[in-house]
Amino acid sequence: MKVSKKISLENILLVGFPSNGLVGTFTISYLINNLGMKYIGEIDHPDLPPTLFVEDGEILPPIRIYKKNNIFVIMSDLPLDPFLAYDFAESILRYCKKNNIQKIIIVSGMETINGDPKTPKIYGLVTHQSLEEILYTNQISKFLTGSIFGADAAIITVFRKSKIPTLVLYAECHPFFPDPEASIIAITTLAKVLNIKVDTIDIQKKMERLRIQHRNLMEETIRTLQQQENQPTRAPQIYR
Amino acid sequence: MKVSKKISLENILLVGFPSNGLVGTFTISYLINNLGMKYIGEIDHPDLPPTLFVEDGEILPPIRIYKKNNIFVIMSDLPLDPFLAYDFAESILRYCKKNNIQKIIIVSGMETINGDPKTPKIYGLVTHQSLEEILYTNQISKFLTGSIFGADAAIITVFRKSKIPTLVLYAECHPFFPDPEASIIAITTLAKVLNIKVDTIDIQKKMERLRIQHRNLMEETIRTLQQQENQPTRAPQIYR
Amino acid sequence: MKVSKKISLENILLVGFPSNGLVGTFTISYLINNLGMKYIGEIDHPDLPPTLFVEDGEILPPIRIYKKNNIFVIMSDLPLDPFLAYDFAESILRYCKKNNIQKIIIVSGMETINGDPKTPKIYGLVTHQSLEEILYTNQISKFLTGSIFGADAAIITVFRKSKIPTLVLYAECHPFFPDPEASIIAITTLAKVLNIKVDTIDIQKKMERLRIQHRNLMEETIRTLQQQENQPTRAPQIYR
Amino acid sequence: MKVSKKISLENILLVGFPSNGLVGTFTISYLINNLGMKYIGEIDHPDLPPTLFVEDGEILPPIRIYKKNNIFVIMSDLPLDPFLAYDFAESILRYCKKNNIQKIIIVSGMETINGDPKTPKIYGLVTHQSLEEILYTNQISKFLTGSIFGADAAIITVFRKSKIPTLVLYAECHPFFPDPEASIIAITTLAKVLNIKVDTIDIQKKMERLRIQHRNLMEETIRTLQQQENQPTRAPQIYR
Amino acid sequence: MKVSKKISLENILLVGFPSNGLVGTFTISYLINNLGMKYIGEIDHPDLPPTLFVEDGEILPPIRIYKKNNIFVIMSDLPLDPFLAYDFAESILRYCKKNNIQKIIIVSGMETINGDPKTPKIYGLVTHQSLEEILYTNQISKFLTGSIFGADAAIITVFRKSKIPTLVLYAECHPFFPDPEASIIAITTLAKVLNIKVDTIDIQKKMERLRIQHRNLMEETIRTLQQQENQPTRAPQIYR
Repeated sequence: MKVSKKISLENILLVGFPSNGLVGTFTISYLINNLGMKYIGEIDHPDLPPTLFVEDGEILPPIRIYKKNNIFVIMSDLPLDPFLAYDFAESILRYCKKNNIQKIIIVSGMETINGDPKTPKIYGLVTHQSLEEILYTNQISKFLTGSIFGADAAIITVFRKSKIPTLVLYAECHPFFPDPEASIIAITTLAKVLNIKVDTIDIQKKMERLRIQHRNLMEETIRTLQQQENQPTRAPQIYR
Repeated sequence: MKVSKKISLENILLVGFPSNGLVGTFTISYLINNLGMKYIGEIDHPDLPPTLFVEDGEILPPIRIYKKNNIFVIMSDLPLDPFLAYDFAESILRYCKKNNIQKIIIVSGMETINGDPKTPKIYGLVTHQSLEEILYTNQISKFLTGSIFGADAAIITVFRKSKIPTLVLYAECHPFFPDPEASIIAITTLAKVLNIKVDTIDIQKKMERLRIQHRNLMEETIRTLQQQENQPTRAPQIYR
Repeated sequence: MKVSKKISLENILLVGFPSNGLVGTFTISYLINNLGMKYIGEIDHPDLPPTLFVEDGEILPPIRIYKKNNIFVIMSDLPLDPFLAYDFAESILRYCKKNNIQKIIIVSGMETINGDPKTPKIYGLVTHQSLEEILYTNQISKFLTGSIFGADAAIITVFRKSKIPTLVLYAECHPFFPDPEASIIAITTLAKVLNIKVDTIDIQKKMERLRIQHRNLMEETIRTLQQQENQPTRAPQIYR
Repeated sequence: MKVSKKISLENILLVGFPSNGLVGTFTISYLINNLGMKYIGEIDHPDLPPTLFVEDGEILPPIRIYKKNNIFVIMSDLPLDPFLAYDFAESILRYCKKNNIQKIIIVSGMETINGDPKTPKIYGLVTHQSLEEILYTNQISKFLTGSIFGADAAIITVFRKSKIPTLVLYAECHPFFPDPEASIIAITTLAKVLNIKVDTIDIQKKMERLRIQHRNLMEETIRTLQQQENQPTRAPQIYR
Repeated sequence: MKVSKKISLENILLVGFPSNGLVGTFTISYLINNLGMKYIGEIDHPDLPPTLFVEDGEILPPIRIYKKNNIFVIMSDLPLDPFLAYDFAESILRYCKKNNIQKIIIVSGMETINGDPKTPKIYGLVTHQSLEEILYTNQISKFLTGSIFGADAAIITVFRKSKIPTLVLYAECHPFFPDPEASIIAITTLAKVLNIKVDTIDIQKKMERLRIQHRNLMEETIRTLQQQENQPTRAPQIYR
């Protein structure tokens, strides 16, 4: 019990941003609302196009920081092009150091490859061996082979050279359409890893509305991902 | 009475620039003429393409400052791309500090979403709680949910971190055509907020001429807004 | 008489460059030849594409300075894009200060708007009230309303803040074709203003040849003017 | 025997990157696996788009360094555009100096020109006369005439002015499709030059799978090569 | 005789690069081979795309320097875009000063305008009056009227302000196809000017092969020339 308490008390940062199927965006925002996390700050970047969101009359910047107990969240509502992605990653690292974050978890999507789109699987990738145990304990399949581009790649690149271990959860999803179904498995898995309780009834109810509401963001995200002329894929690009 | 006088004596800055339906341009220029405001200066920017306007044989720069009593105006006749928008916002902030401005009001347009284009509504967005009272007193609906891009977003971003509160009046309008009708409600609302008298008969008479005369500027404005590949919209881009 | 002599002895700079209908180019080069002005220098710019002209076996740079008595000329054979236009304007201002120029006259073209292309009119625009008298004395209609882009706008922008007054002569012309007819009225008006004698028989004779010879330059000029996505026009862009 | 030992003990660097027919990529990765070389480091570049590869759950950067005994390898899984190519070449030179490399060998492909695609030939190009002997001893035809662009050209340009001699092995290949056949002759030749034993049975078995798996990388490589609007070719570009 | 000797002993630099009809490239390379000039150096530029040529197994950089007795040659095998052209011209000037060059001769092509393509003419243009005599002595027609763009213009611009006089030989040629015929007159004229003996039998034999071999370079050259959206032409661009 004591050990388990210690684990739950280490500072954990969750990161989400628009990517394949908008899995990261759906998952992280759902968690923020469901857990009632508190908005505590924002991350600026002079090269981000001027953008604001309004929610219940409150003005929100595109990259926001939330917190509840030992869980921190950094989420972006704007897709991040390859040029901004490294700066975003460096900002996250600086924030982690300042706030004594001991572990970060990125939630993202990955083009589904095997058969049944109704039962998406989730894969885990870790930057430091110390996190392998999380995969094992929570029965998350290991991401074995593939290429990673964009903001995910930028954050992993920066953190694998740091002392802060990173877990990336890749939920299989439709790459070109908002995929709230894929987010359900991501949320469920994340809840297990964080040892918290989150139900997904709300997301299941709003499924169709979410798909329609986020068409524009999905398009913009695809455009940004394609700036690198490649989409994340599990097709091997290196010789084995 | 004393308090009300004090309020009317505080320095207020109105800001307008080409955006959806050219609402800001129509409203602010109408007010300048109707109130007989005095041209007192200009704002330069080395990256603005060389442009001048001639009016009654007088040469006018594209970004001008006007004043009458405690009311100041900064208006641009050129749409401002995302790269210039932040500089424009910073120039306005510097001007406000130098001239002891205590409140700024931006007039802009917002794509109409509900039914009847003949009875456009107006929405208010405030950066500081101190301005909420204005919305309540003048029965202006609160802008509750949506995304904001372009010059509006740049100014709000800069001022919400400053001590100078900002009110943005969004009149529902046609996004792709000059919309003088939408400006009428903006002018009327603005007059109430400023506690001044402005009639809109002149704008009503010239309605068709305004629409035709401003086609080019509208096209140029749309082109500039689309540089961010998005138009202001109330469709929610963030999960709720 | 004495006063009139004084006026004729002040240093005047004429400026011409490719613009609508090539009016500035035709007018200024005609005057150089007709008055037998002397080539006395050139203006360099590192961002001008490498270009030279050969005339009677003599190598000429694209931006040249000529002089005869108290009349100076700066003319460009290359159209100047918006980025170069400000530098060009600044170069002219520096030259004026060094050479004690007391007045500059720009000759340019303006898209014809009223009826008869065979009787083009000429309009004058002045940056300082001190030049109003020239318009009156020479019965030049005042340019009342419109928008100005490109190199004209850059030079006016720079000089209206200086102590050197500028007169711009806008001859109505065909915007897309070389228009030597429009140049005839510009030459005649300029001669009146300068109080010199210039006949236009030579230009009348070569009319067709000029049109054909300058097709390429016209095309290049239109391309440069359109970089600003707008052509000079009298259609009002600002609310009145 | 002693002399031969000395030769085998000098530090040799092999370099491969995506180019015509992906010959360099296939050859060098095959060798790494076949010889069981050890991954010892990576080369970063801030202008490389964020990219990572995952292999057996291990995260790999795009430009990696391997080593076994006296043989070093630098290989890139990303094609290098003309702007990055010089930096890549300079990085390799710095690495060579730090690690006392005495000779480098680049493996690349060259569009086949003569008859039979089933019996590709291999050509050698050397930057310093001291390597001519290798061509002679191993019966490698000399690359006599042609033009070289892209990353090959950048590395040769940098090393021909250094003290470290470079041998480039050009295997004839199909320029637009992954060409594992061409890699077999490159591997065989490289093995002879390095005086090591490598069998090519594994590559022969996987031929078709390799061709399919690497379609995307081939496309991206062609796009990168065409940035210079030219593909490597033996057609002479200079007069003889 | 003594005077003539002195003339022949002054250091002369010949310059050639890909331009209209590839006349400069053909002429200068033919001369290098025919006179057996010695390769003595190269000119680098960090913005040149990485390119190398291989000739008889020897690696050659794209901009090379050759020498025999008092004759120097700088030739480029890459067409030089407007941005590089000024740097190239400055490099040549520095080289001239360091090596006490007293005169430079550029060989280039000019779109043929009059009748018979089978009897191309050659025109000479000089930057300093001191070279007029060469035109007269060798019966070279003077280039009287026209516009010059690209690398020719950059070199002339730089040298006409220096103390080193420049002669440009313009052979009439086909602007869009490699034109070895035009090179024959250029070679013959150059031989007369240099007072050396060169036969053109070799170039006459290889005529067709040259045309085919250099198609790619011609295309690339046209692309580079068109970056300035203009091709050298004798059509007058300035008013006379």
